[in-house]
Amino acid sequence: MEDSERFSRQMEFIVEIDKLKHIERQSALCDGTRQENDSEHSWHIALMAILFSEYANSLDIDLLRVVKMLLIHDLVEIDAGDTFAYDVIGNADKAKRERKAANRIFGILPDDQKEELLSLWEEFESLSTPEARFASALDKLQPLILSFNNKGWSWKKHSVASNQILESKKEMVSGSEDLWEYAKRLIQESIDAGFLIEG
Amino acid sequence: MEDSERFSRQMEFIVEIDKLKHIERQSALCDGTRQENDSEHSWHIALMAILFSEYANSLDIDLLRVVKMLLIHDLVEIDAGDTFAYDVIGNADKAKRERKAANRIFGILPDDQKEELLSLWEEFESLSTPEARFASALDKLQPLILSFNNKGWSWKKHSVASNQILESKKEMVSGSEDLWEYAKRLIQESIDAGFLIEG
Repeated sequence: MEDSERFSRQMEFIVEIDKLKHIERQSALCDGTRQENDSEHSWHIALMAILFSEYANSLDIDLLRVVKMLLIHDLVEIDAGDTFAYDVIGNADKAKRERKAANRIFGILPDDQKEELLSLWEEFESLSTPEARFASALDKLQPLILSFNNKGWSWKKHSVASNQILESKKEMVSGSEDLWEYAKRLIQESIDAGFLIEG
Repeated sequence: MEDSERFSRQMEFIVEIDKLKHIERQSALCDGTRQENDSEHSWHIALMAILFSEYANSLDIDLLRVVKMLLIHDLVEIDAGDTFAYDVIGNADKAKRERKAANRIFGILPDDQKEELLSLWEEFESLSTPEARFASALDKLQPLILSFNNKGWSWKKHSVASNQILESKKEMVSGSEDLWEYAKRLIQESIDAGFLIEG
């Protein structure tokens, strides 16, 4: 098999995605020593999906599907870069940049795997299934956990206020009411502790 | 749920495992700019499992089980540290250190999840199932891919020769004959290209 065109494309993809380890996010690690990168974030939320599946709104989600989505959801940022949730200008053409990236990056793979991953990425982006909505809730919750633990490192750096966070996270409720309740509590505790500006 | 003892333990675990992002491995990234950490490595091989499942020796492996194993297999290194495969002294008490770490780290979780993850970790370590053997083959293949791409960064640093690598990787054959054949070819190509000392 190792001489096949199929295997070559799969291996090229595996080497290409190594670049995700260089894509820095706005969130810092729990101890605040440095910023997190996309591959670390993807690993963290994939494991959160496994441990928190009981909190998904839908009780019969396909967990493997959720994990696959989370492992690949940020690959487009290899080309498109990480866009901070509160960056208005960067978010204006985000969808277009990410679509182009998805076509190039998933296009490295053999057609069947390209179709599977592209379809999973679209499902995640469009929140069109219970799996996508749960996956997205985890994607939104994880930086909140980091920020609470590092005492608001990125919130302070970017002067983000609580209402902006509530607004950008509120879609969580469609994937997990339980985790959304927890997120709101964490935001309030962050305000109370002085990690986050109210308003 | 968010006031429950169960959720508190799950959340404590999610915060604890953030430390995996600080555990540096001996392998450098494909571009050789810096060393990889355990969380990045775990993300990479989980995605490899999804794309390479067709190369597992056993055709009916439980892919979710493989992915779970790969996402958690290095968590013990939060306490026990990364032990380089070719470090004789470090490997002498590795099992004991990692067992202690597994008990502490998985012990943070509620009992049912502690049992599940501890059992998955033991399965991976003992290579007792087709899933574990396939997962282990990926764990052994990935640093080889990085090292080939970064022109033998860690092999040169530690003066590792090809026979040591063949010896430490040969168990791959029990999980994937196809990927083991590829690994041997990559080792030969590394010798031919001057990235690795033969012998």
